[in-house]
Amino acid sequence: MPTVFSEDSVGLVTPQVAHFAEPLALACGRSLADYRLVYETYGELNAARSNAVLICHALSGHHHAAGYHSADERKPGWWDSCIGPGKPIDTRKFFVVSLNNLGGCNGSTGPSSVNPATGKPFGADFPVMTVEDWVNSQARLADLLGIGQWAAVVGGSLGGMQALQWSISHPERIRHCLAIASAPKLSAQNIAFNEVARQAILTDPEFHGGHFQEQNVIPKRGLMLARMVGHITYLSDDAMGEKFGRGLKSEKLNYDFHSVEFQVESYLRYQGEEFSGRFDANTYLLMTKALDYFDPAAAHAGDLAKTLAAAQADFCVMSFTTDWRFSPARSREIVDALLAARKNVSYLEIDAPQGHDAFLIPIPRYLQAFSSYMNRILV
Amino acid sequence: MPTVFSEDSVGLVTPQVAHFAEPLALACGRSLADYRLVYETYGELNAARSNAVLICHALSGHHHAAGYHSADERKPGWWDSCIGPGKPIDTRKFFVVSLNNLGGCNGSTGPSSVNPATGKPFGADFPVMTVEDWVNSQARLADLLGIGQWAAVVGGSLGGMQALQWSISHPERIRHCLAIASAPKLSAQNIAFNEVARQAILTDPEFHGGHFQEQNVIPKRGLMLARMVGHITYLSDDAMGEKFGRGLKSEKLNYDFHSVEFQVESYLRYQGEEFSGRFDANTYLLMTKALDYFDPAAAHAGDLAKTLAAAQADFCVMSFTTDWRFSPARSREIVDALLAARKNVSYLEIDAPQGHDAFLIPIPRYLQAFSSYMNRILV
Repeated sequence: MPTVFSEDSVGLVTPQVAHFAEPLALACGRSLADYRLVYETYGELNAARSNAVLICHALSGHHHAAGYHSADERKPGWWDSCIGPGKPIDTRKFFVVSLNNLGGCNGSTGPSSVNPATGKPFGADFPVMTVEDWVNSQARLADLLGIGQWAAVVGGSLGGMQALQWSISHPERIRHCLAIASAPKLSAQNIAFNEVARQAILTDPEFHGGHFQEQNVIPKRGLMLARMVGHITYLSDDAMGEKFGRGLKSEKLNYDFHSVEFQVESYLRYQGEEFSGRFDANTYLLMTKALDYFDPAAAHAGDLAKTLAAAQADFCVMSFTTDWRFSPARSREIVDALLAARKNVSYLEIDAPQGHDAFLIPIPRYLQAFSSYMNRILV
Repeated sequence: MPTVFSEDSVGLVTPQVAHFAEPLALACGRSLADYRLVYETYGELNAARSNAVLICHALSGHHHAAGYHSADERKPGWWDSCIGPGKPIDTRKFFVVSLNNLGGCNGSTGPSSVNPATGKPFGADFPVMTVEDWVNSQARLADLLGIGQWAAVVGGSLGGMQALQWSISHPERIRHCLAIASAPKLSAQNIAFNEVARQAILTDPEFHGGHFQEQNVIPKRGLMLARMVGHITYLSDDAMGEKFGRGLKSEKLNYDFHSVEFQVESYLRYQGEEFSGRFDANTYLLMTKALDYFDPAAAHAGDLAKTLAAAQADFCVMSFTTDWRFSPARSREIVDALLAARKNVSYLEIDAPQGHDAFLIPIPRYLQAFSSYMNRILV
């Protein structure tokens, strides 16, 4: 509970809401009549409007990327290690915009919002979103904020996919694209893990076909299992070994079918339960589907270089050695396609034991490289 | 449906049942008053009783390892590629014994058996088994069959752990130990995957605290999810990519929250559903617990070489390059400990794209190496 914020914090921040009344056409063929996006901004937009940076969030992320909502808030925003005065995304230089994606559950229009057509929550009737849809909705937010071109669009994991898509969908509106711990598309194994998470939610009797809100219940078990599976893929085998090893929860084994014996079990159950109380099950399904569908190369018969040919941005791609969800090999696919398309690309593979989660962690070499790239951006 | 069996098949086989009336003390502190083990044998025990080979099964395995129960059986036993005339475990030379482990659900005493104390199925009251318990129960089966010493004990995955434990618990009763695609203990990540599977079963409303049989239901959803998670860890990322890639189930995407879009989703759902109809949920819990608990080095403060010092067997350790459930590094831990304990050990790392499942697949180099080791065993 910081009463005085540290010098490198953006300090107190207040979420804002943008309303959009013009219908948004979606990849699924449907459209959203109107919608709202919740967002935060850090730093000041300069007179030339040339210093704006967009932050795109990953599966369970939201708009609150940096600073504190109140002096009582226990933890700062999810990417506070990278956004603030003197940090990689330096708020003394940049005007940073961070939003909750459409379909989210943190204030932007999503499955738990009321469907104006029925007066009830959308639930599973909410349209499925794609990364392209998100980018289009984000472009409207840029319009509203008077940002014609982003100095940079930055994201990790699913956020990196949005940054890539920006360079493809709106090439003239993005000068730098930073895709961190990301991939050009999911592998069969990635989809398989998503499918386990979805089945856990879909088969939870409390899911009620996605209309659980009307029943005043939540599919807690399904969400818990989904998060547990997710967590395993966010950490490296080594990181888990280092953190928990085979450490026991109690002094001795219980030898039964249900007790928590090992610390790693206890950790996963806690993570799963905590998550199931705060995240919307339909949003989880929607986010995993958006991940599955992302495949920009498909527009050119699988040739990513052709898809990226239209991009005008410079690129920075970063990966982490022990990330097995989106391994360095997946980042190199992006880099290879960019090189084949004759784009400017910087690539860094960071030696880090933390697995996929590394992109959220203040690893010195990572912060240094990230800062170094951002510092070179002209505004 | 072979009406004439091929020359390298053991042909028609008939399971047998062994009853044990003497109580078996278990690692958990409880004991089983009496129990039965279902087993099959292939080949003939020689006059010197020196040619017996024990097959130990993995998580979802059973006694039916080779041949056919009837001419109508669609598929032979689960390790038919490795057991039979001219195969690695050559039934012209060896007398092979394959059993369903205690706690299983294929005929041996387990959670779905009737508890003589209550007249109802044990359910989750069945004692938790450890690899040591299994080895002790297998030793009694050896006694019953008049086998003082196994020429070899052979197993893959959890089966390899049993083979290792044989060399430790009964050093004088095993001449060769073959541990394939195995590990000296589970890593935190291995335990974590098991815990997700267990939570899927335990939180299924149809689980009823493990007494679902009395309610005439089965926790189908939980078992399905458990199997789906398992399947992902049995295959390599490459194997999944090769088999399914991002291939679609239908010609076009459905863009909704629940449809099967990709072939890999369809495959996993099928595997999960098929499994949930044939496997006992309590046995699944028990098997994953036995995996978690296995840690022979714990007896010597984590020093596996010290634990293995008492072994008298020769060892053959094999691993597969793309196995990420029990990677080659885990097999090398066993090999290093055996070398430190000055035991005879052959080690082979087989280049195979199939992941953990490779140990069940007739990969030429694997079969060749396996045969070569078995052929050198004197009987």
